[in-house]
Amino acid sequence: MESILNLMKCRRGVRQFADRAVPEKVLSKILEAAIYAPSGVGGAHILVVDDQELRKKIRSICEIGERQWVDSQPLSVRERIVAQPNFSYSLEFLETAPALLIVSTRPRDPERPYAVECAFLAVGYMLVMIEGLGLGTITYTPSVTDEKQSKILEELLGLPEGEKIQVILPVGYPESKPKHDTGKAQYSVFHNRFGEPFTLAT
Amino acid sequence: MESILNLMKCRRGVRQFADRAVPEKVLSKILEAAIYAPSGVGGAHILVVDDQELRKKIRSICEIGERQWVDSQPLSVRERIVAQPNFSYSLEFLETAPALLIVSTRPRDPERPYAVECAFLAVGYMLVMIEGLGLGTITYTPSVTDEKQSKILEELLGLPEGEKIQVILPVGYPESKPKHDTGKAQYSVFHNRFGEPFTLAT
Repeated sequence: MESILNLMKCRRGVRQFADRAVPEKVLSKILEAAIYAPSGVGGAHILVVDDQELRKKIRSICEIGERQWVDSQPLSVRERIVAQPNFSYSLEFLETAPALLIVSTRPRDPERPYAVECAFLAVGYMLVMIEGLGLGTITYTPSVTDEKQSKILEELLGLPEGEKIQVILPVGYPESKPKHDTGKAQYSVFHNRFGEPFTLAT
Repeated sequence: MESILNLMKCRRGVRQFADRAVPEKVLSKILEAAIYAPSGVGGAHILVVDDQELRKKIRSICEIGERQWVDSQPLSVRERIVAQPNFSYSLEFLETAPALLIVSTRPRDPERPYAVECAFLAVGYMLVMIEGLGLGTITYTPSVTDEKQSKILEELLGLPEGEKIQVILPVGYPESKPKHDTGKAQYSVFHNRFGEPFTLAT
């Protein structure tokens, strides 16, 4: 299973895509990965957007939201966000990726506890498949807080009432693969009690 | 990448574990999978519990919480939960699995937006690794709502203040592999507009 671990280790966020369509057969494998992820009593919808005009409109609405969201963050968070490798307010990748995979769920639906959590678990599955297929993506979480823009986006996509877009994965063949390291220092591992370090045997 | 997709398709929730320890080197691979998952500005902690007495206590507290949580759900949800294959109020697997991987984060921390979401994405990575290593697990989301029990659990594990246990993954070699199908009907896939079906090319 070294190969899967290597895939995970080599994955980098991709924001630049080659001008090359992703065959439906390949896209289907990514979607199958999501479908087979454990969903408990959750449930999510995935929208595949390959229409170019639609991607352009989605980009435009998300860029407005992105700037508003970053500006609304506490200073310390904002600093960390903009310090991320390749950070940009431009969401060009939403337009240039040949396909967007939009994951939506109804948050806080008493009928579907853990729907959001399961959606992100399925995103994990999709990321592994995307990397395994030689494709690239970046996990983009849109934050369209402006009510008018939000309404436009919902109508554009026919988003089911009460649902919220959790993630957009722009998928395509990487134009270039960023060489920077992933932010792997974010997880600490402990042993039998928080605070007691667990040493990885690698 | 058929092999990864096959791994995902063959995965089943495992609740019965063989009496056989998981070597630290193997556990480390699962933890590495989590560490390499994209974490954005999130951040989570993972606690490895292999102490038997501790696992027994965790089981006991979680079983009380489980029953309370299921009973508190709307009837329709409760019916779906108990109808799941192998459903049981018994959380024996928390005691019999040789290791528990406990993922905790601070929910709704303005300093760490998307911390919970990223934690579940990392769970997705871990599930793929666990299956790939020939191990088994079940994605258990504890719901200890009783304040006294919750306090006992926090003190037992030294849980950092304000953090919440998001997931417990009991990990071990499967005693037997359930043959039932996974609940894969929970995800619907659409094309360019919600409601317009996307046909998988499989």
